[in-house]
Amino acid sequence: MKVLLKNYVTGKATESDMEVVATEAVELKVPEGSKDTIVLKNLYLSCDPYMRSRMTKHEIPSYVPDFVPGEVITGQGVSKVVDSTHADYKVGELVCGMTGWEEYSLISNPQNFFKINHPEIPLSHYTGIVGMPGFTAHIGFNEIAAPKKGEYVFVSAAAGAVGQLVGQFAKLMGCYVVGSAGSDEKVELLKNKFGFDNAFNYKKESDLNLALQRFFPEGIDIYFENVGGATLDAVLQNMRSHGRIVACGMISQYNLVEPDGIHNLFQIVAKRIRMEGFFVSDHLSSYRKFEEMTVQYIKEDKITYVEDIVEGLKNAPSALIGLFEGRNVGKQVVVVSRE
Amino acid sequence: MKVLLKNYVTGKATESDMEVVATEAVELKVPEGSKDTIVLKNLYLSCDPYMRSRMTKHEIPSYVPDFVPGEVITGQGVSKVVDSTHADYKVGELVCGMTGWEEYSLISNPQNFFKINHPEIPLSHYTGIVGMPGFTAHIGFNEIAAPKKGEYVFVSAAAGAVGQLVGQFAKLMGCYVVGSAGSDEKVELLKNKFGFDNAFNYKKESDLNLALQRFFPEGIDIYFENVGGATLDAVLQNMRSHGRIVACGMISQYNLVEPDGIHNLFQIVAKRIRMEGFFVSDHLSSYRKFEEMTVQYIKEDKITYVEDIVEGLKNAPSALIGLFEGRNVGKQVVVVSRE
Repeated sequence: MKVLLKNYVTGKATESDMEVVATEAVELKVPEGSKDTIVLKNLYLSCDPYMRSRMTKHEIPSYVPDFVPGEVITGQGVSKVVDSTHADYKVGELVCGMTGWEEYSLISNPQNFFKINHPEIPLSHYTGIVGMPGFTAHIGFNEIAAPKKGEYVFVSAAAGAVGQLVGQFAKLMGCYVVGSAGSDEKVELLKNKFGFDNAFNYKKESDLNLALQRFFPEGIDIYFENVGGATLDAVLQNMRSHGRIVACGMISQYNLVEPDGIHNLFQIVAKRIRMEGFFVSDHLSSYRKFEEMTVQYIKEDKITYVEDIVEGLKNAPSALIGLFEGRNVGKQVVVVSRE
Repeated sequence: MKVLLKNYVTGKATESDMEVVATEAVELKVPEGSKDTIVLKNLYLSCDPYMRSRMTKHEIPSYVPDFVPGEVITGQGVSKVVDSTHADYKVGELVCGMTGWEEYSLISNPQNFFKINHPEIPLSHYTGIVGMPGFTAHIGFNEIAAPKKGEYVFVSAAAGAVGQLVGQFAKLMGCYVVGSAGSDEKVELLKNKFGFDNAFNYKKESDLNLALQRFFPEGIDIYFENVGGATLDAVLQNMRSHGRIVACGMISQYNLVEPDGIHNLFQIVAKRIRMEGFFVSDHLSSYRKFEEMTVQYIKEDKITYVEDIVEGLKNAPSALIGLFEGRNVGKQVVVVSRE
């Protein structure tokens, strides 16, 4: 079984833009003569917002390659090596990296695969808290935002794969942190499970500017941006001098043909704001240090993580689309096989 | 004679929002018993875009205090000390700093006045190339943008008080630099006087995105932002990875009640852009170093500067309004008295 992109998408992506098809019996061996090649058995697949961009055809190449209609969708995943002609990968090893939405993937010249050093924690965590989203939260908050103790931090999409960790890193740093999310269930998680100082359901606020004034009477030092649009515009009005906006993603915009207009950018001048985008792929040399730190935090119960686990490849398209509708509660993972 | 704000302004500012009134005979002495006070004879006054913000009443205090209707307008100027009870200021000294739009100003506890160390260059230069605008160009380009040799630099409002210097600093750094301006006369100046590699009249471009693609087929590394609005939106589409946008001002927006919407901010994520605002007032400790460097460049003919000099306080309101219509060619200065 595998998941293909059926057609390029303009505007709102739906499940029917993907197709789940049966595969022929798969040879679990690297083809004769193929060097530096591995066969992976895929265990857990990660659904991430940036994948929406790959479903659209870009005239000018985007920052990630577009998917190709008729070809298998790819994304971050946790896999087991079942055959290898690559000196760095041994049969039986567990790895995480960019794999296919299928049961088995044949990968030549694997790039940016990390071996899983801590299989004693749930393997699915390598799609989340100790995988790309967790590392994104760490680099974005601890490196790009350069937080100081006591600062006021706002996180949007705060119950998501990245946001829930940003809030916990902020508390570990001694910051005051408020998160926004799209359901009361998520708001409860933020306050009672992840230890945010406060949280609100943005769908219940008629005026986001007033909501932010309520939670941040002194203003916002650090905004961890996951959503874009109206939230960003309201945040700009509520930033403090020398504030930082870490531009991680803008999920509210990904299904729009014409992105929303942002009107309050003059605040970047008036408040001396730094707004900065980043890719974790520029920081891979510090991944191992992050992995050790985070595994330690998990073992000491200093941080926690919620995953929204869907069973079976056939449910992967709906899980991915669910991200853009806010259906997931926590990190969206698809289980292909548990071992 | 003095220039007052007549009323707070909403939307487009006009000359009639200010009033030039006669003053009674002025006592050129510090009043008896007033300590730490100076009387200044104002020589050259600076017209700067940020002053538009001060003409509007802000519910939440802005980054610079609002003017007060019925009171004299204040701004950067070059003045001579004619009386002083302040130990740091002697009669006859020349200073630059925040003074009144009037012939003589009485200032208690003068803050952030700099003595003019190089009266051998034209004194008006202390409102421009070696004053606040020149220092702004230096800090914004050389510090905030952190340019590297060979990078591609775009400057908007490039013939203005700040822009003309940014382009020249970019050439001194070994960058490729293109400027935009609002008349063919200014475009000629950019190319033939300031040494920009290229320049264009934005009013003659029906599609700013295509214009930028033409001048920057490889994209833009550094954008020195003076205008905001449609230019910023087009620039965002043409930035290179790891680009920097120095947010100095957004003059196209200052007369608007509802600022333009900017649609391409996702590029900050996709291109890992840093967009950053700054105030020169945070950097005053390096002013003297800048002054020496720039005076040296002037004496060696390594940089040049164009001023648009208007005679007489009574013409100051029209000179200020002219900034927002692009009437000035180069730095807008008002002469009150030449000595």
